[in-house]
Amino acid sequence: MQKPSIPKGTRDFTPEEMAKRNYIFNTIKDIFRLYGYQQIETPAMENLSTLMGKYGEEGDKLLFKILNSGNFMDDIDVDNYPSLLYGGSLLATKICEKGLRYDLTVPFARFVVQNRDKITFPFRRYQIQPVWRADRPQKGRYREFYQCDVDVVGSDSLLNELELIQIVDEVYRRLKINVCIKLNNRKVLSGIAEIIGERDKIVDITVAIDKMDKIGLEKVNEELAQKGVSAQAIEKLQPILKLSGTNSKKLQELKSILAASEIGLKGIEELEIIFNLCEKNQIETTIELDLTLARGLNYYTGAIFEVKALDVEIGSITGGGRYDNLTGVFGMEGVSGVGISFGADRIYDVLNHLNLYTETSTEQTQILFVHFGENEKLHSLLWLKTLRDRGVNAEIYPDDVKMKKQMSYADSKNIPFVAIVGETEVNENKMMLKNMKTGEQKLMAIEEVVELVIYANYGLKKL
Amino acid sequence: MQKPSIPKGTRDFTPEEMAKRNYIFNTIKDIFRLYGYQQIETPAMENLSTLMGKYGEEGDKLLFKILNSGNFMDDIDVDNYPSLLYGGSLLATKICEKGLRYDLTVPFARFVVQNRDKITFPFRRYQIQPVWRADRPQKGRYREFYQCDVDVVGSDSLLNELELIQIVDEVYRRLKINVCIKLNNRKVLSGIAEIIGERDKIVDITVAIDKMDKIGLEKVNEELAQKGVSAQAIEKLQPILKLSGTNSKKLQELKSILAASEIGLKGIEELEIIFNLCEKNQIETTIELDLTLARGLNYYTGAIFEVKALDVEIGSITGGGRYDNLTGVFGMEGVSGVGISFGADRIYDVLNHLNLYTETSTEQTQILFVHFGENEKLHSLLWLKTLRDRGVNAEIYPDDVKMKKQMSYADSKNIPFVAIVGETEVNENKMMLKNMKTGEQKLMAIEEVVELVIYANYGLKKL
Repeated sequence: MQKPSIPKGTRDFTPEEMAKRNYIFNTIKDIFRLYGYQQIETPAMENLSTLMGKYGEEGDKLLFKILNSGNFMDDIDVDNYPSLLYGGSLLATKICEKGLRYDLTVPFARFVVQNRDKITFPFRRYQIQPVWRADRPQKGRYREFYQCDVDVVGSDSLLNELELIQIVDEVYRRLKINVCIKLNNRKVLSGIAEIIGERDKIVDITVAIDKMDKIGLEKVNEELAQKGVSAQAIEKLQPILKLSGTNSKKLQELKSILAASEIGLKGIEELEIIFNLCEKNQIETTIELDLTLARGLNYYTGAIFEVKALDVEIGSITGGGRYDNLTGVFGMEGVSGVGISFGADRIYDVLNHLNLYTETSTEQTQILFVHFGENEKLHSLLWLKTLRDRGVNAEIYPDDVKMKKQMSYADSKNIPFVAIVGETEVNENKMMLKNMKTGEQKLMAIEEVVELVIYANYGLKKL
Repeated sequence: MQKPSIPKGTRDFTPEEMAKRNYIFNTIKDIFRLYGYQQIETPAMENLSTLMGKYGEEGDKLLFKILNSGNFMDDIDVDNYPSLLYGGSLLATKICEKGLRYDLTVPFARFVVQNRDKITFPFRRYQIQPVWRADRPQKGRYREFYQCDVDVVGSDSLLNELELIQIVDEVYRRLKINVCIKLNNRKVLSGIAEIIGERDKIVDITVAIDKMDKIGLEKVNEELAQKGVSAQAIEKLQPILKLSGTNSKKLQELKSILAASEIGLKGIEELEIIFNLCEKNQIETTIELDLTLARGLNYYTGAIFEVKALDVEIGSITGGGRYDNLTGVFGMEGVSGVGISFGADRIYDVLNHLNLYTETSTEQTQILFVHFGENEKLHSLLWLKTLRDRGVNAEIYPDDVKMKKQMSYADSKNIPFVAIVGETEVNENKMMLKNMKTGEQKLMAIEEVVELVIYANYGLKKL
C-alpha cells in the first residue's frame, strides 16, 4: 500500500480549480479568435538538440530530460571513459535524446520552420500548453505550469503591436482586472547605449535605471559607477534618468537626446506610431512609456511590453515583444514576429485574491434530482432527458440513500436547484423544486422547471 | 543551423487539425457537463512508484522515465556495483524518480485517494489530457496521444451504466458517426468459467470465443483444446458458443445455462437491468450483448462496454467498464466506480475518413479586411472594432502588399468574406464586401456587413 503523492512543484487541479482556470483560458481564447489568431499544439517532448543552448547555461540545467527507452546504457563506453559516470551532465547527453518543453517560444519557432509549407503567412497563432522547468519550487513557482502565447510572424507592420495591445485591453476588461501596460522599445535602449558610448553595458544600465523609484537618482549613479560605467557616460545618462511627464513629453525630450543615434530615433518613431494608433483606437488601459523595461533583451528587437495588475502586489502578468530573427537558428532567416504571453497562474492568483470570479459557470450542474426510492428515480430519468435536451446541466443522485445525504451532495457541489421527487410528486407528474440559496420551494411541472432554470442561468430570478 | 524535427511518434497540430480536434473535444465536453461530470487535471509527471507495476511488465517498459535533475550520478555506487551499468533497467530505477503519465486511470485513482477530502462522492469526473507510451510508433499509434475519460466513483448504482450509454449515444449522434455499443459483464464471464470448471482459463476462453465469426465453431473448439481446456469443459461451453438471436433471448438461455452459478446469475441480472433502463430511456444506438468482450479483464468487475464505428474499418473508438477496487492499491478500499474512455485520435480518423466535419467553426476568421494603403488601413481599424465588439472574428492584412497577395491570404485561411477598402470606399464610408465562395460583391455600410456576416455564421445566406 502506497501513500499517494505527486512530484514536488506539480499540482492536481480539482473541479473547482479547473472551472476557474477554464474561465481564464476561455476568455483569452475567445479574444484571440476575434483577432484571427488560430490555435496550434506541439509535442510535450522535443529533441534535446532543439532545446539545448536556447535558454542560456542556466536554462539548459533546468530542462527535464527523458531517459532513452530500452537498453540505454548499451552504447555507453564507460570502460574507456569512466569520467562519464561522475556528476552526470556528460552522461545525460548520452542517455537522453529528448526533453520536456521549457517554453512555447522555441517549439513555436521550430514549428514554423518545420511546417512552413502548411501555414499561411503572416501566421497568427496562439498556443496554450504546459511547460516544465526543474526550478526550485516555491510559492507561485511551479515545475509544471501553463503558458498562453499569442504571436504573429511574417509581418513587420506595427498594426500587430496595436492589436496585441487591444487584446490585452480587452482580456483584462473582461476579466475585470485593472492593469497598466508598460511599453518600451529595444531600439531606444540601443540608442541610449550608443549615445553614452557604453554599448556592452546596456543590461547593467537598464537594471540600474529600474531601481530609480526605490533608491533614488544618487544611489543609481553609484551603482552605475560600480558596474564600471564611465563617469562621462553616467553624466550623459542624467537627462534620460530625469525624464518625466506624459509619454509624449518624454518622447519629445528623448528625441533631442538621441538625435545623433539613427537606431534610437527609429525606436522613438515606432513608439510614436504605436501610441498614436492606441489613441485613435480608444484603448482604455493606461499605457506608459517605461525605459527601464528590458525583458529577454537577447532576442527582442523592437517593441517590448509588460502588463502589471494595479490592485495586487504581483509581478508582471503578461509580457512580450518584437523579435526579428526567432526562426534563424532553425535555418529560416528574415521572419519578423511579435508576440505576448499571458501568465495563467498569476492571473489565477489575481482573480482569487480580488475574488473576481463570476458565479455562473457553464461547467456547473444546474439542477439535481433527489428521490425517495426506485420508482421516483426511474420517473425522474425522463425529466432529466428533457432538461438535458434543452441544454441544462442536470444530474440525479444515483444511489438510494437518505434525503439528507442527497441534499448535502447538492450543497457540496454548489448546485443551485434541487428537484425533490416523492410518491406524491410522481402521481401529480410534478416535482418540488427547491432554490438552494433562498430555501424557497414550489411544486412545478417539468416545463416550468426548464424555463426557470434556464432563466436563472442567465442571472434572472423567478423563484 | 539545425534541420528541425520532432521525436518519432509525436505530432505537431496545425490550426486546421486543431479546429477539428477542438470540435471533437468540445462536443464531448458539452455532453459530459450535461450529465454533471466535472473536469480535473493531473500532472504530466507522476512519481514512478505511482506508475510502476500498474500496467504489467510490458507496461513498465513503455513508461517514459525522467532523469533526476542535478548531479544524478552522485549517489550511484558503480564502484561496488558495476552491474548497475549494464542494460540499464536497474540503473534507471536509481537515476529516475518520475515518469510521464501512461494513462488517465491510475493518476485518477491516485487523485481520488489524495484529494478525498476535497471532492464530493459520488464523484463524477472527466479528464482530457495527453498520455505517453514508449511504444513502437506505427500508423495510428503514437507515443503522445490524448485520452478522454469519464468516470463516476463511489456509487454502485446501475443508473451510472445507463448514463454512460446515454453519453455515448448522444456524443455519436452529435458527431454523426453510426456506432453500435457492445455490452458484456465480467460476472457473467466468471460464471461461465465457474460452470465449465476452468476458472483460470477465462482469458483463453474469451480470446477463442472472439474468433467465432472468423474461424467458425470447429476451429474455436480446436483452439480451446490446444490451450489445455478440458474436453468436458469444451462440451459444456457449446451451448454458450451457439447462443444467438436477440439480447433477451440470449439472456434467457444464459440464465438456464448459468443456473448453478450465483455470480453468473448476478451478472445476468445486471445486464437485464441495464438493457431495460436503455429501452425505457429511448437509447437510439443499437446495443448488443457480446460475451466475447473482455477488455482489461484484470480490473473490471461488472459491466464492460465497447463502441464500434459501423461505416469504417477501425478498432473500438470508446470503451470501459465497472471496477470495484481501483483505489485499493493507494489505500482506499471499497470504492466502486464505472467509466469509459473516448479515443480522440480514432474518432478524428473516422471523421476525416467519412468527411463529417461541419464547415462552420467558431475558430475561423469570418472576415478579412484588405486595403490599398495606409489611410484605408487606418479607416478599417474602426470597422474591425465594431465587428469584434459584436463577436465576429475579424482581421486585417497587416502589411502594405499587393491586393493579390492579400486575397490569396484569405483563400488559404478559408475566410468566407473579404472587405475591400480603397479610396472610394473610405470616402463613401462603405466597403466592398466580397463573398469568397460565390464571388459576388456589393458595396455595403458597416452595419449591413455586421448583420450579413453574423447571419452567414449561423448558416443563413444573404449575399
